[in-house]
Amino acid sequence: MADGNVKVLGAWPSPFVMRVRVALHLKSVDYDNIEENLLEAKSELLLKSNPLHKKVPVLIHGDKFVCESLIIVQYIDELWCSAPSILPSDPYDRAESRFWAAYFFPALRRVLLGPTEEDQKAAMAEVLEGVVLLEEAFKRLSKGKAFFGGDNVGYVDLAAGSLLAWIQVIEKFTETKLLSEDKTPSLVTWADCFSSHAAVKDVFPDTDKLADFGMKFRAEILKAAAATTTN
Amino acid sequence: MADGNVKVLGAWPSPFVMRVRVALHLKSVDYDNIEENLLEAKSELLLKSNPLHKKVPVLIHGDKFVCESLIIVQYIDELWCSAPSILPSDPYDRAESRFWAAYFFPALRRVLLGPTEEDQKAAMAEVLEGVVLLEEAFKRLSKGKAFFGGDNVGYVDLAAGSLLAWIQVIEKFTETKLLSEDKTPSLVTWADCFSSHAAVKDVFPDTDKLADFGMKFRAEILKAAAATTTN
Repeated sequence: MADGNVKVLGAWPSPFVMRVRVALHLKSVDYDNIEENLLEAKSELLLKSNPLHKKVPVLIHGDKFVCESLIIVQYIDELWCSAPSILPSDPYDRAESRFWAAYFFPALRRVLLGPTEEDQKAAMAEVLEGVVLLEEAFKRLSKGKAFFGGDNVGYVDLAAGSLLAWIQVIEKFTETKLLSEDKTPSLVTWADCFSSHAAVKDVFPDTDKLADFGMKFRAEILKAAAATTTN
Repeated sequence: MADGNVKVLGAWPSPFVMRVRVALHLKSVDYDNIEENLLEAKSELLLKSNPLHKKVPVLIHGDKFVCESLIIVQYIDELWCSAPSILPSDPYDRAESRFWAAYFFPALRRVLLGPTEEDQKAAMAEVLEGVVLLEEAFKRLSKGKAFFGGDNVGYVDLAAGSLLAWIQVIEKFTETKLLSEDKTPSLVTWADCFSSHAAVKDVFPDTDKLADFGMKFRAEILKAAAATTTN
């Protein structure tokens, strides 16, 4: 389905951007990808299209701007509704999907970017507890199928799956397994299915390249924090 | 419409609980209200029904638990779909509503509960900037009608309107007008329409009572923070 009028203002290392691009792939919507460099000053287009949060991703659809990854995914799901649904149809299943999609990220970010080592450790404990809960949620939501969404990649798959590459980076940096055959066997299998899915594999970042970006991004954050403290 | 099987685990001072109760009123759904005391230990029912976040509101519908206020509101909107919609029908209008509904609260909470006086001041500056942006959004979304949702109380009305009583408390404590004829004339009129609406007025808390609760709640938070620091 060619639309010709759809652009994603994104950045390859961003899990939030990945959600949007995978959603468009699932709906077979053609789009132009505009890369924002997260290590440089924000572009005029980003400031204009998301003046409030100034963050990628932004979906540019004709003269409309849609911001916030999960809001964009729902927009895509509702607009291109002839392709298979990303959200389930039952109201309670939808609520559960929304709940689990919103869960998880803040602690994961703090493992790498928390203000103190103590905070980073506390965040790691939260994440390790969280993945076990997500394993339970997977068993319930997937009903024995490959994805949270059943046979197809769904809303929770997009939300949680977009974090997998960063999880691998954290595992590399901290030398701690977040997903393991021992504690989260279903998620280990799911992670393989998700990252190799046709809609995902071309936008799933290489771990070494992402780890390299992660180091640079962390340095930028620390530099900015130091500047704020000394000002 | 009597359902007989719907309960809200809530607390009268919580803006998040108000969203859920008003949504049920808008859909004419009968429900039992179970009050959680936010100044005391969490109830067994709360820990069982929302084990992850342990927060009100929880909608108990038969044997199902739905958590997180905006997820509950969407659940209510999708389940009782014969009553007028809370979210608009157009995908882009829905995305805009979701965007504005998710905006705003963190800074408002920090005005009263921020860890330092400096943080509280920064939060106040954010809020004052935010209400002006919300005024602009109101003009665009309401299309000259009384509510963000047009003629009817909609999703952004629930999300932002539930904060009005706390805004009044903050105005009282800080002696600073957050909404004013001068800077946010549309929101001043909207606030009156919202708080006196038939679906809202019975659950809109009295400012003095809420201010009294706010003082006690703040003391509890400070006590807990002090205990963490000295442990």
